[in-house]
Amino acid sequence: MASRRRVGEFELIARHFAPLARSFAGAGGLESDNAFLPADRRHDTAVKTDTVVSGVHFLADETPQRVAAKALRVCLSDLAAGGARPLAYQLSLALPRGWRERWVEDFARGLAADQRRYGIVLCGGDTVVTPGPLSITITAFGTVPRGRGLGRADARPGDELWASGTIGDGALGLLAARGRLKGLGARDRKALEDRYRLPRPRTALGSRLIGIANAVADVSDGLLADAGHIAAASRLEVHIARELVPLSGAARRALAVDPALWANVLGGGDDYELVIAVPPRKRAALLVAARRADVPVTPIGRFARGGGVRLTVNGKGVKAPRTGYVHF
Amino acid sequence: MASRRRVGEFELIARHFAPLARSFAGAGGLESDNAFLPADRRHDTAVKTDTVVSGVHFLADETPQRVAAKALRVCLSDLAAGGARPLAYQLSLALPRGWRERWVEDFARGLAADQRRYGIVLCGGDTVVTPGPLSITITAFGTVPRGRGLGRADARPGDELWASGTIGDGALGLLAARGRLKGLGARDRKALEDRYRLPRPRTALGSRLIGIANAVADVSDGLLADAGHIAAASRLEVHIARELVPLSGAARRALAVDPALWANVLGGGDDYELVIAVPPRKRAALLVAARRADVPVTPIGRFARGGGVRLTVNGKGVKAPRTGYVHF
Repeated sequence: MASRRRVGEFELIARHFAPLARSFAGAGGLESDNAFLPADRRHDTAVKTDTVVSGVHFLADETPQRVAAKALRVCLSDLAAGGARPLAYQLSLALPRGWRERWVEDFARGLAADQRRYGIVLCGGDTVVTPGPLSITITAFGTVPRGRGLGRADARPGDELWASGTIGDGALGLLAARGRLKGLGARDRKALEDRYRLPRPRTALGSRLIGIANAVADVSDGLLADAGHIAAASRLEVHIARELVPLSGAARRALAVDPALWANVLGGGDDYELVIAVPPRKRAALLVAARRADVPVTPIGRFARGGGVRLTVNGKGVKAPRTGYVHF
Repeated sequence: MASRRRVGEFELIARHFAPLARSFAGAGGLESDNAFLPADRRHDTAVKTDTVVSGVHFLADETPQRVAAKALRVCLSDLAAGGARPLAYQLSLALPRGWRERWVEDFARGLAADQRRYGIVLCGGDTVVTPGPLSITITAFGTVPRGRGLGRADARPGDELWASGTIGDGALGLLAARGRLKGLGARDRKALEDRYRLPRPRTALGSRLIGIANAVADVSDGLLADAGHIAAASRLEVHIARELVPLSGAARRALAVDPALWANVLGGGDDYELVIAVPPRKRAALLVAARRADVPVTPIGRFARGGGVRLTVNGKGVKAPRTGYVHF
């Protein structure tokens, strides 16, 4: 975080970059995770670019295999939010001075493992050397049925808000990795840290949400921020009931030790779960899709007319912790 | 350049990344400027990613508008080499700590100007803050007729090698910008510097080369390196006659002052011209296409069975200057 107040990432994009994308319908005003380019008569290609920088988006001591996995998986998480099946990706690798071939070899091995796991394949890119830290930009391509890719802008009043998996493990895992999570057993700390280091994008669920969800975002900036992005893009308010937010055992125990960690659970990022706006009549279909994808889903709130994020604890309104821009 | 001997960019890609792209036909083994994804029944989408880093690929004191132009145009040059018409692009902007909104505003203004000039539009991306230098990764998309996108691998023995525009101005312009080009008038120095700072990608020519050229590359690494890339990908030798290489007046005068600059003219990069492998029977068609695109083209050599780059001066073989990896 910068020490003086600066415009945030979303404001910056809205002010300076969204006007550049106005004439491209598939860009959705840069408000969603993906852009959509026409593919064949029955499909569009979902496109998403993400950059990760050493020491900012992953720990500087991370193994090359895990760096590869993180770089690729944050993009796969966006494709999942778009309802897309992974297809191919472009890789730009900016190596720091003093790079070693052995590192690149292990990095490529990490990519190869994830290519097999997610059914995606490298199709091009660029390699440069930078005086700065290791940085990786991936542009991932996925396939969606024509005109049906999911974005953030189509939630409706009355839609339920669902979350996949468990929330908060990413942010708690970052604390654990930095040795800042006290009073918790080693096994819990390890479990949380693994969640931070190795995202598990919900690709199996994402493509099954087409025809069910009205809007989807992945939880990369934090639950409140990302649910808020859907609300903002859809010009709605989103209400989240904190007691319904699904937590892992490790997160529950961490919160029992220190309830102040709720700010990290709700406001931190790196969960790479999906938040999903679903009309009530599609609830059964969502549960079937989630079972087929083997991903648990939990209803945690609702969309209504209005604007912003409203957080309650057992029905009582509480101040939402400061959110978003965690990497910016 | 690293002080100790390291594997070069192309070797690194061939060893560690080409195997990851083996199963994707449109990646062409990562040997060409572009990958091709299927679009509709009559088109493919050409895709190219390029990263530029402040102080490496452009001068650290460059204006935001020119940084925007350089970042976008190096990608457009690759699309031109693929025979593609510009369509859309994704932008990843890694801002240095201490960035100012004013800079971003001017940068976006530069993008807007080039969007109008080249008929391309922003469709998405990412914005991050890095502890390193300003870095920009652009993934550009272009349109080519189905299955007819141009690459580097299909030159044939007997094909002529043609070059667009003039060669060497980029590398000489970098010297001029660094105050290392002595004995040359201010106007010539300025003209060369402009060529370095502001590439003019040959998009109008590129899309007209489909059905004419067997292989195309853009001159980003240097004439000998890029003609050599076509030769290597096509498993051929390329012969270049130095006296035929088209030069600007400024470059001619610089060489008259210091003939050692031939190494920069032939071995430096950043010309963003096209080198084109054309069968002799297509020569007339090439000249018509070049006239319609308003881009001069010059025959400078020929492909033959064998391997590597053979440089001659008035028929006499000379040692080619060390080439490639200028940014690596």
